[in-house]
Amino acid sequence: MALTNLSRRVALGIDIGGTNTKFGVVNHRGEVLEKGSLRTDEYKKIEDFIDALYLQVSPLIEKYGTVKNFDGIGLGVPNGNYYTGTVELAPNLPWKGVIPFAELMENKFGMECTITNDANAAALGEMLFGAARGMKDFIMITLGTGVGSGIVANGNVIYGHDGFAGELGHTIVKPGGRKHWSTGSEGSLEAYASATGIAITAKKMRAEFPSSMLNQYPEESINSKTVYECAIKEDPIAIEVFRYTGQKLGEALANFVMFSSPEAILLFGGVIQAGDFILKPAKLHMERNLLPIFRDKVRLVFSELPEADAAILGASALVWEQ
Amino acid sequence: MALTNLSRRVALGIDIGGTNTKFGVVNHRGEVLEKGSLRTDEYKKIEDFIDALYLQVSPLIEKYGTVKNFDGIGLGVPNGNYYTGTVELAPNLPWKGVIPFAELMENKFGMECTITNDANAAALGEMLFGAARGMKDFIMITLGTGVGSGIVANGNVIYGHDGFAGELGHTIVKPGGRKHWSTGSEGSLEAYASATGIAITAKKMRAEFPSSMLNQYPEESINSKTVYECAIKEDPIAIEVFRYTGQKLGEALANFVMFSSPEAILLFGGVIQAGDFILKPAKLHMERNLLPIFRDKVRLVFSELPEADAAILGASALVWEQ
Repeated sequence: MALTNLSRRVALGIDIGGTNTKFGVVNHRGEVLEKGSLRTDEYKKIEDFIDALYLQVSPLIEKYGTVKNFDGIGLGVPNGNYYTGTVELAPNLPWKGVIPFAELMENKFGMECTITNDANAAALGEMLFGAARGMKDFIMITLGTGVGSGIVANGNVIYGHDGFAGELGHTIVKPGGRKHWSTGSEGSLEAYASATGIAITAKKMRAEFPSSMLNQYPEESINSKTVYECAIKEDPIAIEVFRYTGQKLGEALANFVMFSSPEAILLFGGVIQAGDFILKPAKLHMERNLLPIFRDKVRLVFSELPEADAAILGASALVWEQ
Repeated sequence: MALTNLSRRVALGIDIGGTNTKFGVVNHRGEVLEKGSLRTDEYKKIEDFIDALYLQVSPLIEKYGTVKNFDGIGLGVPNGNYYTGTVELAPNLPWKGVIPFAELMENKFGMECTITNDANAAALGEMLFGAARGMKDFIMITLGTGVGSGIVANGNVIYGHDGFAGELGHTIVKPGGRKHWSTGSEGSLEAYASATGIAITAKKMRAEFPSSMLNQYPEESINSKTVYECAIKEDPIAIEVFRYTGQKLGEALANFVMFSSPEAILLFGGVIQAGDFILKPAKLHMERNLLPIFRDKVRLVFSELPEADAAILGASALVWEQ
């Protein structure tokens, strides 16, 4: 009886992005049983957003009985703080200042709510349900519009003294290098290895090489997808854009490895669709910058979670990680 | 009675360096009750070294009754592996290959022996007895002939999947920069912020500026101590040597902070005798390279342990950390 009950227990996983919010009911095996979504950016007041979320989620809760069948809510959100349950100064969310997100959710839903940032949630999802199953030491790097990271050491997510650890996208890989469009820092990993950074590199390189296929596209459609299209057609400049990106990524990864000596580095996000065009130079430059004792030990692997469910799975993993 | 016994319990702390080995009997309060030392480099065979160590240490053990009064041996040694108890490929020790150090010690001494590298031991010593008391998240940087590090997150030393985590001295702070005299890597922190690196910087800068006071010394006596002598006499080139060193250190520290978000960074070792000449630029460049959420939060502090005892205290802390 107890076992049957356990196998029926579920969690609510919620991933809040600047534009969309995804939610789902997830079981212990990492199956997304139900899911849905709503716009994040339509709600200027946090209370209105939570009301709208509750309206959409409560039919799913009823389908599984009551809140008593739920082990809790796991919520991945930019600048989400695991320790305080707050969301602090998130530049891409409509709500400003410090929001007591977990508390607001608990009051509305009547169940415990655990928060962390989206990259930490992704790392937990990989550890419970994905490519990092059984690993105690790994680093998750999300390569999307920005570059996020979640670091797991000795089986635990590293949150740091204030809950903000793991901002590897903002570490400096080239002092005095490319200025970041938002933070103003010079030479951060995100400035090179994010989709935004790749587009900048591509625009610079195509201007230098008029013969590149990349010049057949209008300015606004230069992105990692169009660079990929040219790379598979063997345009040397498009290939060089990814090689350069991979080099900067690999140099950064070497530093991360010498910090926490992970068993693997997991890569996730839209940028990894460039595959070996980025992975091979990344691996090369990572190995080249490592001390010999770290060489040929760290696996560079792609996430195994289905992209559509990964964020929900990661958020739900927060509930069961505790 | 039990309490009395506890208060009398002691540990053996041993710090093995390339030239000298220091050992001591330490109690729970971090008091070094007895100590001694022997040469490391006189023993070409590891068995001979352990025999000689045992000969010197056993009178101290007898003074405290028997091995039963000891909670164990903590041993800090370059390339010491916490997981396997081995010392692997240590370039500065007389014994080559992979040495089953903990096992050899246990067989000889009849008590449990725990091993880690010297920088991790230093971090543990600070956490139990020094400036990091009560901290759960901090990074220890040792600035000596080389640059070592020990990272504590959530109250635990980060060892990584293979026991080799925390080689922050070998992270690259300037891609394509100064070639390391031993590893061959280009632009590592150690190449700039170690005593060896400072001497290189000083020799370069004094050659460029014939008016510098540094030119009054013979080549072989240019080191961080003589640079300090010139800096306190307000030689602008000597001051610039430390400023540049501090800048490189600060840039590296910013990256470390964005990795594990520590409450403090502890600095230890001969180089810190340069004080504010290095600390001020280090702080400036650390803050400048941090994301706003990390700014003005991380304390940069000097070790509080007496230098003569720090290594022994750190090693003994290994016994009680478990």
